[in-house]
Amino acid sequence: MPKHKYIGVIGAGECDPELGMLAEAVGRGIAEAGAILVCGGMGGVMEAACRGAKVAGGTTIGILPGQDRSRANECVDFAIATGINEARNLAIIRTADSLVAVGGSYGTLSEIGFALKAGKKVVGLRTWDIKGIVPARTAEEAVRLAAE
Amino acid sequence: MPKHKYIGVIGAGECDPELGMLAEAVGRGIAEAGAILVCGGMGGVMEAACRGAKVAGGTTIGILPGQDRSRANECVDFAIATGINEARNLAIIRTADSLVAVGGSYGTLSEIGFALKAGKKVVGLRTWDIKGIVPARTAEEAVRLAAE
Amino acid sequence: MPKHKYIGVIGAGECDPELGMLAEAVGRGIAEAGAILVCGGMGGVMEAACRGAKVAGGTTIGILPGQDRSRANECVDFAIATGINEARNLAIIRTADSLVAVGGSYGTLSEIGFALKAGKKVVGLRTWDIKGIVPARTAEEAVRLAAE
Amino acid sequence: MPKHKYIGVIGAGECDPELGMLAEAVGRGIAEAGAILVCGGMGGVMEAACRGAKVAGGTTIGILPGQDRSRANECVDFAIATGINEARNLAIIRTADSLVAVGGSYGTLSEIGFALKAGKKVVGLRTWDIKGIVPARTAEEAVRLAAE
Repeated sequence: MPKHKYIGVIGAGECDPELGMLAEAVGRGIAEAGAILVCGGMGGVMEAACRGAKVAGGTTIGILPGQDRSRANECVDFAIATGINEARNLAIIRTADSLVAVGGSYGTLSEIGFALKAGKKVVGLRTWDIKGIVPARTAEEAVRLAAE
Repeated sequence: MPKHKYIGVIGAGECDPELGMLAEAVGRGIAEAGAILVCGGMGGVMEAACRGAKVAGGTTIGILPGQDRSRANECVDFAIATGINEARNLAIIRTADSLVAVGGSYGTLSEIGFALKAGKKVVGLRTWDIKGIVPARTAEEAVRLAAE
Repeated sequence: MPKHKYIGVIGAGECDPELGMLAEAVGRGIAEAGAILVCGGMGGVMEAACRGAKVAGGTTIGILPGQDRSRANECVDFAIATGINEARNLAIIRTADSLVAVGGSYGTLSEIGFALKAGKKVVGLRTWDIKGIVPARTAEEAVRLAAE
Repeated sequence: MPKHKYIGVIGAGECDPELGMLAEAVGRGIAEAGAILVCGGMGGVMEAACRGAKVAGGTTIGILPGQDRSRANECVDFAIATGINEARNLAIIRTADSLVAVGGSYGTLSEIGFALKAGKKVVGLRTWDIKGIVPARTAEEAVRLAAE
């Protein structure tokens, strides 16, 4: 198995343009760092991050909630259809070596909690202020911290 | 199907005696309110809450992470062996009508996030300070708020 | 935790009246044997078995595919909303000490395979002819074999 | 998202050399057909199939039962750590467009049942004789039928 690092991106399935640009820059940075991007494969932050990774020639994996692989966003290279709904969030956390949380509401909070419990590094960009998150100010800094 | 209310209790699998007494009082209150207690069925806060419910003549359901029903704590009346590890936390949230979070670390934070995302009322006792949690000062108040 | 035996009933979510009567007799037998009935909590064979158990004063647990506890059939005493769709079938198998398969198509075949893999006894009534299933001719015989 | 076909390979985690050679030929055929191989990512039939796909320059995805991505066999390109144990079998079925069952015992039977329930084509090589499986005599024939 190739020894790539897997970096997860977590965030809401809908987002405003500003957060989308941030997520896209995170995705681009992950690809430029030679890591594989893992996410939930749907819209919003997930789609923007995947787009950034693809623009930079990277590889993206989407772990979907539903039963239909074709529901992945257009920038997912490899889609997994789990059919277990939000329980797939835990598979994203377990698959990633480290994570970047971009914005996000309660779903992202849930993922952050689970990631910190699992001992994964979580870098935060405009997200919850939770003890244990490594804060970053820019997408570049977030990726650098996550890729360390 | 009987129309009982299901109140979930979430919290760590290990806890100090003080938090254990608080959890036990919550369990007792849930039983006295005529509700069914739902939890993860393991030790710590979960076991203390179940003990309180049984002392007061209540009914307890434990949704276990592992594959073996016999691993439930002694005060679980009905145990479900899911075999899906922490993903079972989501089944606890979905099954409960409302929840009381007692103390807790990152695992509980993850459950709180998921519960708030699912639109369930979460009452907090010495737990995370997250917008959306309804804070309570005593076990009695917590149960009253959760049972409303 | 009370030391009841848990007997699972697996079968399709829709069934003809004849198979329904057979499932109802199985449920009645499980209750009369003092065991708890575990099933998927939906319609067809599951509902008929639960009805039989309730008529005989037994206790029924329904482990549901969806996110909403209220979707359980009327004869489920305790409903678990897993939200993981068919993956909940595995929780039924793991929770039961032994199982009775009543009729059934591919979904039931999948459960039979998983139960036999998990080393659980599976008693079959008008179901798949798979090596490892203990065949029974009547509901009474099926319950007797499952309760042994 | 690239429009590759995903072909799943299901079979036991341990296998004799003869079945291993058959699985390897299936994997090779999947790669030569330009499809992506999806499997459980562990040993036995899964490992042999992945090896065959890699020899032929193909791409392999392993959807693992455990929490640790590094437990995938050496020939998995992209590994998903689900942490939901055998419930991950359902994600393999849902992700694949069609499947080849190679040998196999009860675990494979369970996957076959679920795949047929989900309406996926299942091609069988020395596996269970279940109505609905499309039988094949050689690895080449199996892949041809699965790729149609």
